[in-house]
Amino acid sequence: MVPVMLRRYGDLTRVALARYLAPREPHRHLYALVADYPRRGGRMMRPTLCIATARLFGAAAEEAAGAAVGLELLHNAFLVHDDVEDESEARRGGPTLHATHGTAVAVNTGDALILLGLRALMDTRATIGPRLALRLLEDAERMGRESVEGQAMELGWRRDVALRLGDAEYFAMVLKKTCWYTTIFPSRAGALIGTRSEENLDRFIRFGFFLGVAFQIQDDVLNLVGNEAAYGKELDGDIREGKRTLMLLHLMREAGDAERDRLAAFLALPRAARDDEDVRWVRDRMLARGSVDYARTVAHALAGAAREECVRLYAGMPDSEDRRFVEELPAWVIRRA
Amino acid sequence: MVPVMLRRYGDLTRVALARYLAPREPHRHLYALVADYPRRGGRMMRPTLCIATARLFGAAAEEAAGAAVGLELLHNAFLVHDDVEDESEARRGGPTLHATHGTAVAVNTGDALILLGLRALMDTRATIGPRLALRLLEDAERMGRESVEGQAMELGWRRDVALRLGDAEYFAMVLKKTCWYTTIFPSRAGALIGTRSEENLDRFIRFGFFLGVAFQIQDDVLNLVGNEAAYGKELDGDIREGKRTLMLLHLMREAGDAERDRLAAFLALPRAARDDEDVRWVRDRMLARGSVDYARTVAHALAGAAREECVRLYAGMPDSEDRRFVEELPAWVIRRA
Repeated sequence: MVPVMLRRYGDLTRVALARYLAPREPHRHLYALVADYPRRGGRMMRPTLCIATARLFGAAAEEAAGAAVGLELLHNAFLVHDDVEDESEARRGGPTLHATHGTAVAVNTGDALILLGLRALMDTRATIGPRLALRLLEDAERMGRESVEGQAMELGWRRDVALRLGDAEYFAMVLKKTCWYTTIFPSRAGALIGTRSEENLDRFIRFGFFLGVAFQIQDDVLNLVGNEAAYGKELDGDIREGKRTLMLLHLMREAGDAERDRLAAFLALPRAARDDEDVRWVRDRMLARGSVDYARTVAHALAGAAREECVRLYAGMPDSEDRRFVEELPAWVIRRA
Repeated sequence: MVPVMLRRYGDLTRVALARYLAPREPHRHLYALVADYPRRGGRMMRPTLCIATARLFGAAAEEAAGAAVGLELLHNAFLVHDDVEDESEARRGGPTLHATHGTAVAVNTGDALILLGLRALMDTRATIGPRLALRLLEDAERMGRESVEGQAMELGWRRDVALRLGDAEYFAMVLKKTCWYTTIFPSRAGALIGTRSEENLDRFIRFGFFLGVAFQIQDDVLNLVGNEAAYGKELDGDIREGKRTLMLLHLMREAGDAERDRLAAFLALPRAARDDEDVRWVRDRMLARGSVDYARTVAHALAGAAREECVRLYAGMPDSEDRRFVEELPAWVIRRA
């Protein structure tokens, strides 16, 4: 069910999105670049979750398409700024925006994408009225705030060369940095549009937390063991960036003294000074110490919890394609390659 | 009148602002930095223009304080991102955020300031209701869009090493990059709150254009001939950045062939490769060719036009401190040191 719905609501979103990505001036140094990441594709998981949730609560898919476009644009804005912040080289199978056009243009393009995403959310007033449209914007602001706080935690760990972090700290960071914009806000936005009410949105936080963390762990596992062409980012880029993944945390705990010293020295280096041999060594240690298996086990448990939450959320509702999509999503996020 | 009102409404804004800058977690890598630029001070011209305009149309100063806080926060967000984009070294008498904390943290902090500014604007719903609060947000989105478009034009000129630009192109860029957030949006926001209506906001564009361009030219003149301690940014930083100021455009037109070749070679260099001697030479040429006098003359004419627009806008209204502030503002922006 998941791939079918991703295609169906993804197509609906892409059509609505095209209106916001029409060529405008200044083109070459702004709007051509604003359209770049959104046009590279993507699975449309966030818009589809939003639309399916809206339908579960009684809205037509078209009524949620504007919010879906808004959150997809905000997602792309985060990607552009995150790529600058992480000094990433590849994204969705191509060079990152800043790698091609420089940091200045990339930061400005990310700002334009934030504004465009907000505009799409503001435009929902035509469907849901000004009061609920404002409520949706307030929730988007909350989502953005959680994201920048999570990003600050992660950047802080790197700057401080944090070596002893527990899984709980990792979960708290991912709740903010990933879950809010990937799973929680899409669910809340869909429910707001479906119920035409701003009440009872907090019930989606647990579901979104379990699902979002499972998603993030699988993403990190794929960065390590996935196929580069299918994955779209540079493989092992996370290790090179010193990203605090569940696997890195596990390795720090399980490593022997000599290993831990080498790992600490590696993490203290600036990104550009980390060489291929070191990156391979970290990767090998993660595999040898069972860090990847550990991460997969945790992701599996979280996906199970997400499914349980989901069954609870929609208990008593009639069977539907939308319900099956949402219930099957947890298993899909940890299965995808 | 201008300094008195800047102090009065500036103080009101600072008090309201403090609530949004209260310490929160994550502190060291985010909220301490979010509060940094706003706490460095600033003349509070934008918030004061907003509050004075609101009062001219019948609101109490306190009713406009929330919008004033919102636009001041958005202004600070632009400063943080602009400093990254321009590779500026100093701001308001201290090192820029990215110079101290790195590009990644600065980009994220700028994002947090955007969100905080939007939140302050959303919070105006308590005063002006959801419909007008949403309208205010829509206008803030327009303002942000104009700003990123103006920034893209300017960055594009630098990337393309544009050598032949007319004054009209410069005015079009400044209208977007400076006027919208400095003069047009503060006036529109004040009028929206004062009139409790979203109608007739476009009448402020001409006034804001004349005033904003005069302001920007004076800013650029001060960068060249001001006192560094009073100015707060590195002196001659604009020349080093290759910023297309009215003075640089004038010099390109007036320069002899040999001068123009040297100037073109200078502008084609990356910023880090431009040395002090070259910067001094450009500065000397601007003074010798009358570029600074030319810029001052244009700023003077625009300030006069702004004052005329202002008299027209408020014709028939009773005399008040707010009216005198707005009418005296054009003369003040080109007189300030």
